Amino acid sequence: MADYDIYGDSGSGNCLKVLWLARHLGIEHRWIETSVLNRGTRTEAFRALNPSAQVPVLVHERRALAQSNAILLHLAEIHDSPLLPCEPFARAKVYEWLFWEQYSHEPCIAVRRFQKVYLKRRDDEIEPKLMERGVAALERMELELARSAFLAGPRATLADLALVAYTRVAPEGGFELESFPAIRRWIGSVEREFKIA
Amino acid sequence: MADYDIYGDSGSGNCLKVLWLARHLGIEHRWIETSVLNRGTRTEAFRALNPSAQVPVLVHERRALAQSNAILLHLAEIHDSPLLPCEPFARAKVYEWLFWEQYSHEPCIAVRRFQKVYLKRRDDEIEPKLMERGVAALERMELELARSAFLAGPRATLADLALVAYTRVAPEGGFELESFPAIRRWIGSVEREFKIA
Repeated sequence: MADYDIYGDSGSGNCLKVLWLARHLGIEHRWIETSVLNRGTRTEAFRALNPSAQVPVLVHERRALAQSNAILLHLAEIHDSPLLPCEPFARAKVYEWLFWEQYSHEPCIAVRRFQKVYLKRRDDEIEPKLMERGVAALERMELELARSAFLAGPRATLADLALVAYTRVAPEGGFELESFPAIRRWIGSVEREFKIA
Repeated sequence: MADYDIYGDSGSGNCLKVLWLARHLGIEHRWIETSVLNRGTRTEAFRALNPSAQVPVLVHERRALAQSNAILLHLAEIHDSPLLPCEPFARAKVYEWLFWEQYSHEPCIAVRRFQKVYLKRRDDEIEPKLMERGVAALERMELELARSAFLAGPRATLADLALVAYTRVAPEGGFELESFPAIRRWIGSVEREFKIA
C-alpha cells in the first residue's frame, strides 16, 4: 500500500505540481481524483481532511496537509531534495517565488483559464483585470528568465515546478506566449527536468 | 549600522509582520518607510530591489528578499526560532497557514480594508465577494482556534504572526469580530506574545 495519498483534480495545476514532485522524488503514492467542478471538495468526508475545501491534500499516517506549495516544501524537505537549497538565502528565494506564485500569478493566470476552459465564459464575461495582471506576472517572469536559466538561480528548484504548472497552459486562458521567449525556453527545460508531458 | 534594512509601509500588515518578527528576534534593523499610496514602490530605485514593486523587502549584504511570509521564514530559520518548528510535519502546517493567508485571507480581508480606509470607498463601491470570502476566511480560523490555542498547535508560530496582522484590523475593513470569540481571544494572546500594541 502506498505511503501517501494525494487528493487532487487532474485538471488543476496546483494538484499536478504535487503529483510531478512525488514522481520526481520516487515517492510511492495513491492519487485520489477529487473533482472541483463536481463538488468533490465539498463533501463532508473531504472537509474532514481539509476544512478549507481545497485540493490538493496530502495524507500520510492519517495526517493531512493542504496548500500545494506547502506540500512541495514538505516533500522536498523530508527527501533532502536539492530542489530546495540548503543555503539560507538561496532557500529563501525559493520561498519568495512560491508565495509570489500564489499571490500574483495563480489568481489571474489559473483563474482566467478556469473561467474560459471549465466555466466556458466568453472573453467579455471575464473580469478584465485578470488579463492585465496575468500579463504583468508573465512580464515579471520574463525579466528573471532572460538573465537566469531558472527562476531561483542556475539550477531547477521548487520555484520552477510551482510556476510551470499554470504557465505552460497559460495560452488556454488567453495569455499568448509569443512575446515571452525566455519563458518559452524555460517551459521546455522544466518539462524535460520533471518529465512533464 | 544595522545589518538589515526593511523597506515597508507602516500601514501594511504585510510589512508590520516583518517588523514585529525582527523585534521579537532582537534583529538590529533599519526601517525605511516606503509608501504604497505615494508610489514609493514604483520608483526606479525600489524596482531595482524588487521588480514586482511590492513591499516589504528585506535587504541584507546587498541581497534583497521580497514576499512577507518568505521573509518571516528566512528570519526564523537563520535564528533557529521555535516559531518555525523543526519537526517536519509541524513545520509543514506552518507553511500551510502561511500560503493560506496569502491566498484566502489577505486578498479579501486586507484588500477590503485598503479600499475602505485608504481609498475611502463606500460599501456599495466595493466588490461584494470580498466580504463573502473574508467572512469564510474568518470562519475557517474560528474553527481552528476553537480547538487549538494557536493556529498550528499549542504554541505560537509564524502562522499566528502572519495571520494576526490583518485579522486584528479586520473591523476597519467592515468585518465584525463579535461572532468569532475564539479569534478575539487568540488576537489578545498573539498581541501579548509579540508585544504588538
